[in-house]
Amino acid sequence: MLKVYLAGPEVFLPRGRELIDRKRAILAEFGFAPTPRHADFLERGDASPRQFGERISRLNEELMDGADVCIANLTPFRGISADVGTVFEVGYMIAQGKPTFGFSNDPRDYSDRAAEYFGSASVSGDRLLSPDGEMIEQHGMADNLMIDGGVSRRGWSLVRASTAPEQRWEDLGAFRQVLMIARDALRSEERHDDWR
Amino acid sequence: MLKVYLAGPEVFLPRGRELIDRKRAILAEFGFAPTPRHADFLERGDASPRQFGERISRLNEELMDGADVCIANLTPFRGISADVGTVFEVGYMIAQGKPTFGFSNDPRDYSDRAAEYFGSASVSGDRLLSPDGEMIEQHGMADNLMIDGGVSRRGWSLVRASTAPEQRWEDLGAFRQVLMIARDALRSEERHDDWR
Repeated sequence: MLKVYLAGPEVFLPRGRELIDRKRAILAEFGFAPTPRHADFLERGDASPRQFGERISRLNEELMDGADVCIANLTPFRGISADVGTVFEVGYMIAQGKPTFGFSNDPRDYSDRAAEYFGSASVSGDRLLSPDGEMIEQHGMADNLMIDGGVSRRGWSLVRASTAPEQRWEDLGAFRQVLMIARDALRSEERHDDWR
Repeated sequence: MLKVYLAGPEVFLPRGRELIDRKRAILAEFGFAPTPRHADFLERGDASPRQFGERISRLNEELMDGADVCIANLTPFRGISADVGTVFEVGYMIAQGKPTFGFSNDPRDYSDRAAEYFGSASVSGDRLLSPDGEMIEQHGMADNLMIDGGVSRRGWSLVRASTAPEQRWEDLGAFRQVLMIARDALRSEERHDDWR
């Protein structure tokens, strides 16, 4: 049974532990197994804050090293993009050639959220610019092209869903959808010659 | 000569090309070579926006695959954390075991920026919480623990500097400093038994 590393910012949420447990349980419905219990709920003990952080970093990397597949919650977190810890993990798993799928409970393109962040945006040639002249990536992608591009050009998927704001983290519809896609894609894995 | 992949959001800045050229030139002062010219300035041609994004994603990954070392600009970008494209690349390079160093022209801890983002934060036990009860990571680190922890626990470095806001991108003091550290660390590489 393929072992799935669940990447996402749920650990920071008030009911994160419960949410993560629900997600872990759902994996079995799609024929996947979760990695061992997530390291972020470790006790700190006598470690300094930095030592504790480094310990979690190491344990999360070890969980990823032992996983076969990554399912990443790329819903924007504290800003216009996905949680950076999650994004680190997506890059880490893709570099190992491990199938990585994402979902976001925000249906918009990155460019729409960035334009909103800047208050306004103008078009210059084929470029979208912030009021300060910063380029706003406009590739019809859910987030930065390294994330969306890295996933989608390998034939993996990034599912986007429209959810009520108060259901942004609780709604697991897109999560289930991407698990179904991952299951089907990995069943037909042998049809792909090259994922790069 | 070790080949350095320069990760950072400069490509989005109005004078990004000039800034990237300056950074590439500085590498030689420290005995490093840059990877071939950065892919983000490609011409789009007939590609659709998504195809073009996927092409850049592929080319950046190829540049990383051919590089020996990563130097990442982790200065907060459009929010409280580093640019997510850069963070993807840090995860990607670390997964390949390639020495990765970072710098940030913001000296603050992640927790300070997050508390500012939320407007206020409260302490509960040893936890820092947002008004909505979200946990704010507090490890004395520059950004999410996967980034700072992944770099620092391997004995690599993340240099933080205090710069005037209008010099946030132009000031290359911390960049030079981290190059010096990287040069010295990689010279004494044989003293490290294990970077994990």
